[in-house]
Amino acid sequence: QRQRLQDRFSLRTNVIRWIIFILIGIMTALIACTIDIVIEELSELKYMFLKSSVDNNVPISDREGGDLALPFLWWILLSIVPVAIGASMVTFIEPITAGSGIPQVKSYLNGVKVPRIVRIKTLAVKSIGVITSVVGGLAGGKEGPMIHAGAVVAAGISQGKSTTFVKDFRIFKAFRDDHEKRDFVLGGAAAGVSAAFGAPIGGMLFSLEEAASFWNQNLIWRTLIASIISSFTLNIVLSAYHGLKDFTFTGLFNLGKFDQPLSFEYFELPIFMLFGVTGGLLGAAWNYLNMRINKFRKRYVPWKVGKVCEAILVSIVGVSMAAGMIYFINDCRPLGNDPTIHPVQLFCEDNEYNAVAALWFQTPEATVRALFHDPPGSHKILTLAMFTLVYYVLSCATFGLNVSLGVFIPVALVGAAWGRLIAMLLFYLFPAAQFLHPGKYALIGAAANLGGVLRMTISLSVILMETTGVETSFFFPLIIALITAKWIGDSFNEGVYDTVIEVNNVPMLSWEPLPQYKGLTAHAIMSQPVICIKRVDSAHYIYDVLRKCQHNGFPVVDNVEGDRRSKGRVCGIILRSQLIVILLKSLYVENKHFWLPETTIQTFRDVYPRYPSIKSVRPLDRKINYTVDLSLFMNHSPIRVNAHDCVPKIFNIFRALGLRHMLVINNENRIAGIITRADFIYK
Amino acid sequence: QRQRLQDRFSLRTNVIRWIIFILIGIMTALIACTIDIVIEELSELKYMFLKSSVDNNVPISDREGGDLALPFLWWILLSIVPVAIGASMVTFIEPITAGSGIPQVKSYLNGVKVPRIVRIKTLAVKSIGVITSVVGGLAGGKEGPMIHAGAVVAAGISQGKSTTFVKDFRIFKAFRDDHEKRDFVLGGAAAGVSAAFGAPIGGMLFSLEEAASFWNQNLIWRTLIASIISSFTLNIVLSAYHGLKDFTFTGLFNLGKFDQPLSFEYFELPIFMLFGVTGGLLGAAWNYLNMRINKFRKRYVPWKVGKVCEAILVSIVGVSMAAGMIYFINDCRPLGNDPTIHPVQLFCEDNEYNAVAALWFQTPEATVRALFHDPPGSHKILTLAMFTLVYYVLSCATFGLNVSLGVFIPVALVGAAWGRLIAMLLFYLFPAAQFLHPGKYALIGAAANLGGVLRMTISLSVILMETTGVETSFFFPLIIALITAKWIGDSFNEGVYDTVIEVNNVPMLSWEPLPQYKGLTAHAIMSQPVICIKRVDSAHYIYDVLRKCQHNGFPVVDNVEGDRRSKGRVCGIILRSQLIVILLKSLYVENKHFWLPETTIQTFRDVYPRYPSIKSVRPLDRKINYTVDLSLFMNHSPIRVNAHDCVPKIFNIFRALGLRHMLVINNENRIAGIITRADFIYK
Repeated sequence: QRQRLQDRFSLRTNVIRWIIFILIGIMTALIACTIDIVIEELSELKYMFLKSSVDNNVPISDREGGDLALPFLWWILLSIVPVAIGASMVTFIEPITAGSGIPQVKSYLNGVKVPRIVRIKTLAVKSIGVITSVVGGLAGGKEGPMIHAGAVVAAGISQGKSTTFVKDFRIFKAFRDDHEKRDFVLGGAAAGVSAAFGAPIGGMLFSLEEAASFWNQNLIWRTLIASIISSFTLNIVLSAYHGLKDFTFTGLFNLGKFDQPLSFEYFELPIFMLFGVTGGLLGAAWNYLNMRINKFRKRYVPWKVGKVCEAILVSIVGVSMAAGMIYFINDCRPLGNDPTIHPVQLFCEDNEYNAVAALWFQTPEATVRALFHDPPGSHKILTLAMFTLVYYVLSCATFGLNVSLGVFIPVALVGAAWGRLIAMLLFYLFPAAQFLHPGKYALIGAAANLGGVLRMTISLSVILMETTGVETSFFFPLIIALITAKWIGDSFNEGVYDTVIEVNNVPMLSWEPLPQYKGLTAHAIMSQPVICIKRVDSAHYIYDVLRKCQHNGFPVVDNVEGDRRSKGRVCGIILRSQLIVILLKSLYVENKHFWLPETTIQTFRDVYPRYPSIKSVRPLDRKINYTVDLSLFMNHSPIRVNAHDCVPKIFNIFRALGLRHMLVINNENRIAGIITRADFIYK
Repeated sequence: QRQRLQDRFSLRTNVIRWIIFILIGIMTALIACTIDIVIEELSELKYMFLKSSVDNNVPISDREGGDLALPFLWWILLSIVPVAIGASMVTFIEPITAGSGIPQVKSYLNGVKVPRIVRIKTLAVKSIGVITSVVGGLAGGKEGPMIHAGAVVAAGISQGKSTTFVKDFRIFKAFRDDHEKRDFVLGGAAAGVSAAFGAPIGGMLFSLEEAASFWNQNLIWRTLIASIISSFTLNIVLSAYHGLKDFTFTGLFNLGKFDQPLSFEYFELPIFMLFGVTGGLLGAAWNYLNMRINKFRKRYVPWKVGKVCEAILVSIVGVSMAAGMIYFINDCRPLGNDPTIHPVQLFCEDNEYNAVAALWFQTPEATVRALFHDPPGSHKILTLAMFTLVYYVLSCATFGLNVSLGVFIPVALVGAAWGRLIAMLLFYLFPAAQFLHPGKYALIGAAANLGGVLRMTISLSVILMETTGVETSFFFPLIIALITAKWIGDSFNEGVYDTVIEVNNVPMLSWEPLPQYKGLTAHAIMSQPVICIKRVDSAHYIYDVLRKCQHNGFPVVDNVEGDRRSKGRVCGIILRSQLIVILLKSLYVENKHFWLPETTIQTFRDVYPRYPSIKSVRPLDRKINYTVDLSLFMNHSPIRVNAHDCVPKIFNIFRALGLRHMLVINNENRIAGIITRADFIYK
């Protein structure tokens, strides 16, 4: 009877879990759609206005000079206003939203507590921040923030309550613990990738390759559902928005679908590898430069206002460089096979358009699309060379600004630019080489550059395949370029996300134990002495311990002679948060009959995840001698290792189980020390 | 100095590991090529001969009757001879090679010791077995055996020695332990899938979804390389074999490339789901039937000769049913858009061919290709209906025979047949429904049927995408059909591989702890009393223990009063195999000065993986009182859990770390029991 009840309960939990993953997919896609559409509409408005401003103010050939300053000023104004808004929001309201959000999500999934990373406020600031920054024309993409948005949505839905709005829907209570929440966030990140790129398999693989730290078949399976639902929802909404002509599902192809299937010959493989080498070198240099810039920033721009000004400055510099390029480079192309929506005439003849302006007068994503799909001969070599250079520097300076922007699109853009450039140069040298399709090489260049900067491989290739609709047989060149780029890059430095994580001193656990730890025993890395609490201890002692130290976990011991707690036998572990709740709710042995019947695990879950601090507990009355019986609350089976166990082995346990604390005991099961995440980071 | 040396050593190990993975990819592809080509050539010969025999013996319209018996007898003969050879080899030489090999590889990767699974002899028998069975015309595919072949290759190469040929190349010694070997086998399985289907991403995902039990970023990364190298090698060799016209890489598209990109409309989604439901139901019924047949087999056909006869019988029945279909169903189609290589005329008019014979006179793989790509109107509805029925029964009877055959192709074939059939029926009812492309629905049917039988989803969809070259946007319908089929199927029974594993009582660890274990403590499942060995114990005692019991791991204890070993304090664990080596090599304390300088971990690795049995140790001389000091050999940090720890928790530890033994201790660190894999299987 009871067995069947439990079965049914476990089935119910499972069904609810599936429903949550589906909801995560839908919600993430809706948010991504909103960001997408708002950015598209505002950019359209901005560039249409600028274009007509240029058209009206262009100097007629006979009376030279002058009026072009006006559209330039408009351009600057329309860039710095949104950037200023975005940067201020990020800086003053929620600084955690700066950057792409992927490193933070990655740390979170690794088991690091990143404060405020999955709050609703964070989501709001991030969304507005990314819209303003992209519309402002900074060299960044909306992808990273969308992934972060997916993570927030997942955390929010799965907990069934919002601490920001102090609203508890009293649902999904079974999932209120760190491990469950982490699984949902993984699904959310996958849904985010899927919504950002329209790439469901890519989303799942991204989660696995970059984000996941733990492995479970059911989890990957739920993650896939979330990302499929997400891409499906996105597709429906965007189809409806763009005028649902027929009901055909076409995929999203964010970066544009290649008209003809791309094919390649075996002798191109070395070229792809060379592209990979180039991408690896350029990527490693980019990462190095970016790290230096960010260190400089951290040191010399510590003030909040300064950070906002810096973002504005970068924006002005970007606009000026773009304007300079448009002004000084004369690259006119005949209209007709014109790929842009708003061709700018500027100094060109009547049925021509300015190819330089076409590169700059749109969002970076649209420019990637243009580089992939524009017919051969759409640009001069000088144009592309200058563009590559300017964008390389700009993107490098932008990542690390206090704005919400991802790094995927600008890096892909730089790669597409130099890829296309090299193909054009080669074709110029060997006009007989018909295989040098510039769009194909732009794609390979983008892949190589992404590999060099981000150092992901499988998920990136799949994402690129899914967003451009190339066939599976073209997977091979993509992965060749990516792998080469990653290998070359890895021999210089780490990927950009890992660099960010390292610079911020996040205690990430690596995949394998560090080689330095070989041969050491637990004794060498554990922290000691450990503050222990007796199984039945006085409330005063607990209160004092909590006031005095900031530890998060305390071993519970029994078999103690007098007050020599640290000589006791380990029988469990209790968390700081639990102790605080016990004190707050006065769960003492002496008044057991009041609270015992109605206290369950729910009592502790209700305050999850924002536990009160010890300061919110009133000092205990000196006179009361109440005691606390921890055996009712503690975790009775903490992971224990022996002081003589070797570090690589205990690292594996720590990593595989996603622990926070590990008790080190001696041969008599008495406490010897405690190991936390920080102890595994090489100092 | 020493630090740098260690770094270099670890770098060297890493490089070697990469090289091994690349070698695994190449070797697996070469073996797959050989199997492929031999099957193709022999089948070609067989069916060409049969076709000309039919042509020569067909009764001319005026003098009816008679001679068709001759080609029929030829057909039977050409089927039973290879089947008999294959079945005898499998039955008499290496019974482990029966079936697809995937369940065995899966168990191996889960950590179960499957004897003789990765031997060279197994590889040889499996290769010949699969060639003969496919040429013999049994309803099976070569895919499962190819994956198994990849696993054997991986195990062989990574160990740098062959125990079958008693040859030790003295290389790759660092990888001679179970964990390392398992990782290589994972790569080999991926390379096998990749070579079987020409699907590198599919191969990697297959390994992850179906085979892997442990998760590590570097591992997935190396696995991908193995499968890419494998598909690349395969492509080069097969291109060369088929006459390397141009050097264009086209992918393999084992199941044929769709000419036009497949597209679909939203209103088709419910149809895809219905296909999924059908696939789930048919698949669950298939699994049930197959299980019953195999149980019947196990009970009533225990003799080896009987098993061979059974295979021959199934082969004869198959041929007879096919011949009956060809004889009785009159389905003539005009030549011209004829897709087969050897059109059979039989009773048809002069410029027509017999569509029924076309289905049967080729390998199952070619038939799948035909069903995917034949133009609409290539078959009568009756033909397909009969074919579906016959093949459903045949494939069900074949899987479980004592031959080396995979289940993928026949299951896909049944699915393609009913998928195409349903599309034709619908088109017959609604002639206006232009979207009912029969090839597309055959693909969806194949996906649904595979989902219903195998219960894999992600890797299957990717494999189908990669082998038919459909675009990534068509991933969506495939996964819809697969997921629906899996869900429906899962509510009835388990996938076919898991059924095989369960029927054979393999102690596989599931992904999550069984719900029955909730609330239990280690005490309830552990085995006790435990046979312990003292840290310094007498050789006699060890010898006696090894003779008396078959346990694989023994706790090492110290702090023992007299002979009450099971009251001692745990200080390590030692394996049976290590103890045997110690006795064999006389590594006693008393003659320490002889062996100590030259005994390293290599002494134990040299005999890996075929440890001698205790019977090979000569009985110890009664008079000697030699002792063994285990602290030199034992594992000093065994995983210990407390007797009060709850089972789901210790299951997670056991699973995540891939353990074999787990010591249960009490509060004083004295042994309480031992938990092995078998203790987690619900009895």
